[in-house]
Formats: sequence, structure tokens, C-alpha cells
Amino acid sequence: MGRRNMAESGGLAGTEVAEISTCLIDGEQGRLSYAGYDIETLAEQAQFEEVCCLLLNGELPNAAQLEALRQEIAQSAVLPAEIRSLLAALPQDADPMAVLRTAVSAYGLYDEDAELPLDREAMRRVVIRLCGQVAAITAAWARIRNGQAVVAARADLTLAANFVAILFDREPDATTTSAINSYLVLLAEHGLNASTFAARVITATGSDVVSAVVGGIGTLKGPAHGGANSEAMRMFQEIGAVENVDSWFEREVKQGGRRIMGIGHRVYKAPDPRAAILQRHADALSRQLGERRWYEIATALAEKAAADEYFIQRRLFPNVDYYSAVLLASLGLASDLFTPLFAVARTIGWGVHAIAQRGGRLIRPKGRYVGPAPRPFIPLAER
Amino acid sequence: MGRRNMAESGGLAGTEVAEISTCLIDGEQGRLSYAGYDIETLAEQAQFEEVCCLLLNGELPNAAQLEALRQEIAQSAVLPAEIRSLLAALPQDADPMAVLRTAVSAYGLYDEDAELPLDREAMRRVVIRLCGQVAAITAAWARIRNGQAVVAARADLTLAANFVAILFDREPDATTTSAINSYLVLLAEHGLNASTFAARVITATGSDVVSAVVGGIGTLKGPAHGGANSEAMRMFQEIGAVENVDSWFEREVKQGGRRIMGIGHRVYKAPDPRAAILQRHADALSRQLGERRWYEIATALAEKAAADEYFIQRRLFPNVDYYSAVLLASLGLASDLFTPLFAVARTIGWGVHAIAQRGGRLIRPKGRYVGPAPRPFIPLAER
Repeated sequence: MGRRNMAESGGLAGTEVAEISTCLIDGEQGRLSYAGYDIETLAEQAQFEEVCCLLLNGELPNAAQLEALRQEIAQSAVLPAEIRSLLAALPQDADPMAVLRTAVSAYGLYDEDAELPLDREAMRRVVIRLCGQVAAITAAWARIRNGQAVVAARADLTLAANFVAILFDREPDATTTSAINSYLVLLAEHGLNASTFAARVITATGSDVVSAVVGGIGTLKGPAHGGANSEAMRMFQEIGAVENVDSWFEREVKQGGRRIMGIGHRVYKAPDPRAAILQRHADALSRQLGERRWYEIATALAEKAAADEYFIQRRLFPNVDYYSAVLLASLGLASDLFTPLFAVARTIGWGVHAIAQRGGRLIRPKGRYVGPAPRPFIPLAER
Repeated sequence: MGRRNMAESGGLAGTEVAEISTCLIDGEQGRLSYAGYDIETLAEQAQFEEVCCLLLNGELPNAAQLEALRQEIAQSAVLPAEIRSLLAALPQDADPMAVLRTAVSAYGLYDEDAELPLDREAMRRVVIRLCGQVAAITAAWARIRNGQAVVAARADLTLAANFVAILFDREPDATTTSAINSYLVLLAEHGLNASTFAARVITATGSDVVSAVVGGIGTLKGPAHGGANSEAMRMFQEIGAVENVDSWFEREVKQGGRRIMGIGHRVYKAPDPRAAILQRHADALSRQLGERRWYEIATALAEKAAADEYFIQRRLFPNVDYYSAVLLASLGLASDLFTPLFAVARTIGWGVHAIAQRGGRLIRPKGRYVGPAPRPFIPLAER
């Protein structure tokens, strides 16, 4: 295997490392389903909590099961006093993903089930609580760093509605709640993506689920993964207005060779099925809020790419990060909060994979040694 | 590929994912070297800081280079006031690895180079500072949870000597410093072990080195990885006295089928070369301190295993965790601090792998779908 092949194989593309029953991705056809249910249907018809039940149990819940989980998550979306104090002490300009990584790690110190990594039921309880906590921490930090008071989650709301309430301190409306719900459903799970794989590597040593989610957050943070939605937004901001799209595309992409953030995907060689749904919500939301700028820039830029030979030949289409950036920007969310919101959705995915990996075989690949041959030690005085 | 094969391949044993130049492990022969230098020689003749230079630069330093790095690490072994306040607010009975995970994550918010993941020199500075910080946090937590005052690291000491000073608040003696130094050298790097692989998966998304080290800590925490040294110690404590070894071995291992923690290794099918060196230090240290109990239990139990057909046939030998437990227990360290001390040593390894992985290809394996076939969505009201 040559140097070039190692660079390819190093990404483990095509290497099967686990059997999974939560998610089927057909990258060639651009199709995605969770446990047999088409993602389009789930995004339009299911509550995020229904999808959490599906991922945790393999089956959709009945009304009583759903209500029980909704309550559990709503109760867990309240920040413990200790975590509130911790957030209040952090520097206001800190990276929100680094803050989330820190606060979730600290949360583990106060959850009585966190250090029971061999107990499946304890792990499930922690995963469910983390779904609420990651939302609570993200919303609290968005407010605390602006000097605003933290808003407590309501016991009667879904996580999507609560997120609107605790982030913006207002009564959640139907359009916004529906957009956030679809977003959470669409990003809940996606097989062995990098952050989920990291969560599995962590849990395979017998480590705990909080460590797995903290590792997932640290992995998602990178611009080649969840960080891509913030990067896409910075690109839209740089373009600035829809009339600049043509000249920006010519100058930066065609002449400058720059990559368009949020276009192209490791797995999808057809349109990412999540992108179209997010585009519809971004359309509706930006109309309601009267802020069409980002939607117009994004669709115009996507059209340029769709008509360009380079993108056509390589089968590069807008991915989930591209239109989620538009959706979240239309909401008025700061671009550095996009990736934390991705983490709110993906916590359930990390959690179910961590539970599945529990007691599994240690994940320990090999390196190929290319360093110096054996050589004698030379004492410091002679160097 | 059948179910059984997936369980095997899921661990990625034998799958090469990266070229590495820091470390060569020969599991069949029981040999280990760092960048061409035999581990026995390094453990006896090199300072931990010399090994850090070797791993960072590929070459042993001259005296001036070594002194510069020693100073950098010594300066970084002083806890920032913000991290001291954070530790003081945590529950005293918290798991020290969960505390370390949290405090290292928080430290990243105060390091001006932490959020520059594409800048190689910035990454190096963060890695060097983390070597000091992980030691400072571990020692500080060991004292804070007992109500003792935090001791500041001295600018004139090596990390091994400083660790004795800041942990025990005493002048470091030669035997203890030498034992700690060898321990740090032996555990500094070990190829693509699970925690280092996690650090690489994290950095491959373009994420930062603090996230990589936080993920490494979460992975190391598991009992099938760094947590094994604490588990070995709990086993020695359960045995309690050297005269109980024979009956414990018969009852628990031969009849009960229990695994001996710290015996056997995923890679080594010959004696782990690190174990013999640690055994010598544990012998010397336990003689000096007059606490021979753990050393005697461990060597007697290892002799039982070495004479037993089951262990002989499967080539199961004491690994690095087995005798590091004896060494650290002889020092009077609580068993739940053993794994954090492993992290002090391994931070440099995580760091150099994270730097090497920077800008690499996203690590994203495949899952094999074994879940339900496509099925129609049934609305909640009909379930």
C-alpha cells in the first residue's frame, strides 16, 4: 500500500466497523431513513421526541410513551445552578463550542448516573438528560454572553418549542417551532460520521456516555464537520448581497479555487435529502420574518454551482450545513451558535451509538511506521 | 463478512490508518522504541522533557533546546486563577478523570492559541502548555478534594520533580523523581492506541488540540484503557495480603473465570517492555518508603499467572498498567488518581498525533445496516 493509498485508507471510507440499525444512508441515490422510516416523512410529521424514542427503542412510541419522554427531556432542559454559575464565570468572547464542551463535561459531575458506564439503563437516562442539557447550555450561553438573563424551560413544551422559548424569551410560534423541530429531526442521527465514530471509540474502552458526548462535541466543532454551517454563514456574509453572487463565484471559486462551504459531502453523491427540507423551512421562515437576504444569496449561489461543470462532474450538491445556515441565520441566530445547535440535535445520535458500543471491542487501529531506524542513544552532554 | 467477522473488524485490529514516525511497537517480540531509540534506554537515561522534544521534533535536543522546553513546561504547570476557582467549586467526591476532562476543557477558553487549529506553531505551543496544565490540574485536584492548599510549580524543576513537589508539597527526592520520570517517559506515546486514535478522529475534522486532548482524556478513562491501572489496584486491595494470593487466584480466576486486570494486552503477545522497567522502580520505591505490600502481592500474582497454562497459551503477561499501579500505590497515591497520572504522561502523545493529523482526511468509516426494511410511517393517533 503506497503513500497515496494510505492517505485514502486513513479516512476509513468504505471500511465497515459496526452493525447499525438506526440509520441507512444511500449516498448514491441521496436517500436517508431512520430505522426504516423515510427522513422526509419524519421531518414533516414526527416530533423530535418521537425520533428520540425511535432511535432509542427501534420503534415509534405510542402517545403515552411519547409524553413520558417529552416530559423527561423538558425537565432536563433546566440548567442546574452549578452549571449556571460556571457559565457566568467564563469569558464572554469564548468559542460557544468550547463552552458547550466544558459545561457538558462539568454537568457529568452532577448526574448521579454518569459514572455507571456498564449499566445500560443508567446510560439511557444520562443520554435523555443530555438532550435537554445541551439545549439548555446552548441557549443559556447565547444569553449570558450578551448580558441577558437565563430563561427556564417550560415543563409543558416540546424541545423544539422550548428552544425558541429559552433562546429568545418569547412564546414559540408555529412556523419557528416547526422549522426547529425539522432541523432537530434531520440532524439527530447520521451513521458513523466523525463525531459519532469518536463517541464510539471513547465508549469502546468502557468509558462513560458523558465522555462520549464531550468527545462528540469536540469533533463536531471542526470546520470539516459541524463547523461547516458557521463557515457557510461567514461565506454568505462575505458575499453580502444577492447581486454580488455572480462576481464572487467567478472571482473566488472559478479563479481563486476556493471551496464553497456547505457544498459537497463525503457520503452523498446525489442531493443531500436533508438540504431540500431545510431549504423549504428556510424559505417559509425568512418570509415570515421578512429577512430574505441569506435565503436569496444561498439559492443564487447554489444555482451557480448547479450549472457549473466542475460541480456537476464531481457531483457536489448543497449539504445539510448549507441550508441549515440559512435557516438559523433567518432566525437571527449568531453564526457561531449554529454548530452548538447541531450538537443539540446530534446528542441523541451520539448517545444511542455510545449505548450500542458499550462492552464492545476496543477500537485500536494500526499505524505504519515510517520513522527512523534503530539508533544508539547519545547522552545529552555529547549532543 | 459475517457477524463474527464484524465484531473482529470493528476493533480495526490490523487496519493501518496512518503513517507514524514517533513510535514502533513490536508486539510479537515485546519491543518498543520512540523515533528509533529503545524505550529501555530512554526510560533510564532521558528526562521526560527530552522525550517531549524527541516526539515533537523527531530528534533529541541539545542542552539549550532541552532547557528551553523544560522552562516552558515548568511555567505551564502553574494553574490559572480561573481554573483554580473552577476546581474549588466542584464536588469533592467527583471522579478525578471527569474533573480533569472538565478543567482541561475550561483551560482552553483561556489559552489565546487554543482556537487556531490550522496554525502548526500555535498547536505546538498549546500542546506544550497542556503538558504542564494536565500535571497541575491533577496535582491540584488531589489536594483540593482533601481540603489541602494548592502548591505552585517551581520554575527550576523538571516536570517529574515538580509533580512530586506540587502533589506532596515536599522537596523531591532522587528515587521518587526518577520513578516518576521513567513512568512519564514510558507512557508518553504508544502509537494508535484508543485515546490517541480518538484525538486523531477529532483533529481530522479541523477541530482544535484542546478538544483532541479532552477527547483523549475521556477515552483513557475507560477500564479497558487507562482505567486499567486503577482497576488493577482495586484488585490488589481486594487480595489484601500476599498470603491471600494463592487462594484468590484459585477462587476468582480459575474457578470464577475472572480476568486479572493489568495482565494481557491487545498488541503485546510477549512481555510488555514497559512493565519490567516499572517493576524495578516499584521495587526500589517500595523499599525506600517501607511499603512492600502491593509490590509483594503483584509479583506473587504475576508468578501464579506466569505458571498457569491458560495464561501461557494465550501469551498474557503483565502490562504497563499492572506495575504502574504498584509504583503509584507505593507512592501513597489514591488509586483513582492513577489514570489522571497516565494522562499527564500521554498528553504529549495525543498532542503530537493531533498535530500530525491536522489537515488530514476526515475519518469516517461505514456502518453495515442491519435495521428494519423501509416501512410506512404510522401517525401517532393510530399507534
